[in-house]
Amino acid sequence: MTQPLNILIIGLGLIGASFGKAIRHQGLAERSVFVLGYDRSQGVAEQAVALGVLDQAVSDLAWLPKIDVVVMAVPVMAIGTVIDDIRPLLGSLQALTDVGSVKGQVVRTVRERLGTLPACFVPGHPIAGAEQSGVTAAKADLFEHHMHILTPLPESDPAAVQLITQLWQAIGADVVEMSVERHDEVLAATSHLPHLLAFSLVDTLARESENREIFKYAAGGFRDFSRIAASDPTMWHDIFLSNKDATLKVLRRFQADLTILEQAIEHDDGDLLQTVFTRAKSARDQFTQMLAERQKN
Amino acid sequence: MTQPLNILIIGLGLIGASFGKAIRHQGLAERSVFVLGYDRSQGVAEQAVALGVLDQAVSDLAWLPKIDVVVMAVPVMAIGTVIDDIRPLLGSLQALTDVGSVKGQVVRTVRERLGTLPACFVPGHPIAGAEQSGVTAAKADLFEHHMHILTPLPESDPAAVQLITQLWQAIGADVVEMSVERHDEVLAATSHLPHLLAFSLVDTLARESENREIFKYAAGGFRDFSRIAASDPTMWHDIFLSNKDATLKVLRRFQADLTILEQAIEHDDGDLLQTVFTRAKSARDQFTQMLAERQKN
Repeated sequence: MTQPLNILIIGLGLIGASFGKAIRHQGLAERSVFVLGYDRSQGVAEQAVALGVLDQAVSDLAWLPKIDVVVMAVPVMAIGTVIDDIRPLLGSLQALTDVGSVKGQVVRTVRERLGTLPACFVPGHPIAGAEQSGVTAAKADLFEHHMHILTPLPESDPAAVQLITQLWQAIGADVVEMSVERHDEVLAATSHLPHLLAFSLVDTLARESENREIFKYAAGGFRDFSRIAASDPTMWHDIFLSNKDATLKVLRRFQADLTILEQAIEHDDGDLLQTVFTRAKSARDQFTQMLAERQKN
Repeated sequence: MTQPLNILIIGLGLIGASFGKAIRHQGLAERSVFVLGYDRSQGVAEQAVALGVLDQAVSDLAWLPKIDVVVMAVPVMAIGTVIDDIRPLLGSLQALTDVGSVKGQVVRTVRERLGTLPACFVPGHPIAGAEQSGVTAAKADLFEHHMHILTPLPESDPAAVQLITQLWQAIGADVVEMSVERHDEVLAATSHLPHLLAFSLVDTLARESENREIFKYAAGGFRDFSRIAASDPTMWHDIFLSNKDATLKVLRRFQADLTILEQAIEHDDGDLLQTVFTRAKSARDQFTQMLAERQKN
């Protein structure tokens, strides 16, 4: 009889807790799993057990059974502390991964703390989320039909990459691989910049409007556009400081393009507006179609 | 027995056709209504009759029965032509209104064409819409629990304002009044600018990405943020050219605020990011609460 795969999740927020719930629910094809979890907030790991997220709560990272896989599900800026905490485990791990929205900063932090990148380390990022946060928001199907991006490093052991791939595939994610740099550029464009624009616009309007009265007249378009401005400020503070270069690059491209539209409005250049809007609509319609096809699969 | 109120809708797109369908469905408390409609595209008015939008199709605006109310449901830039067409009716109308997203330009056009503002004229704008367009998308409940902004003019006959108010209230809209200038500022901020940002961002990303491959990695946040970039390019081209001053004013405020965030990222000013994001989240959470309360009523 093979031993179960012991998985330790550190950080039991929405992502970490949903991973635990999902992997306990789905299991692995050829090996049973045993899910342990730790959270620095007291009582959360016990709550996670009660919610079916974990098999066992861990109250002290210094006292652990044999662990095969560690999933670091903490904010990007907390990775350094976690690496310090789990240093004694690293020699015997089959795989170590994370779920951070920025990959370059996570890799830099691990290298700084350890002086090297361990072969077991396979950085990752699930393209999934929800408006709710915390362990009580955990959903076993959160990652189904969602992309999971892995950014294996030159140092990564292929067996570790394979194991992490299997775990995410087991819970329904579409696993894709790309470089750390490419990941941070893609996410800066499709996620970080839109969040910055939504935060910025809502703040501009809220500050200008007496008693925020202006929002009374906002329709469904504004509602959807601005939804991401309700995201966690601390998490996004971390993301922008961690993915500074890629975010600034795409932000400046956007600012330059927006200035062209500003000038077109100022100079009544209707042709330019029509051209840009038509091109944008075509790209957005294609995106809608892509989402519909993904939903069907 | 009182005569029915004869309402002529000019322009049978989503808004005009939905108004017809709604008012035929709901009626007025003390008077029956008879809904006529005209569309410059051949066959659309007949199709509208078949769809229950109209009592009667009008094929030529030069030959009309006695009309009491005209609703101009055409793009802002088409208002001038409509005014020319209905000039013979104006003397006997009880009320004339429109549904344009910009009010200053509509009022200027009417004044230019007629040399004066007729007392029957009460400009209006329903804060409602849908992704679909055209007569087949007409929905009798499109305006229920939605704001309808009226911008009565100093020249407007109070009886005309009252009649237009009654019509929109009859189909479930929350009618509010404000000045033309205030309307155009509020809409520039809550609708026109967000559309410009969504069009601009989607275009920036689509042009930079080979085969638009980048969109594959976009998540729900981007999907919602960018939905309005699929809006009708011609309608939005008209809106930006018509509401130039108010749009440029709020756009420039936004650009200045965005540059402050850009500099905060560049100089690792985490406190500023945290402050802006926290303020934005608070405003957006308040907006969510307001929407929930409106839904309950």
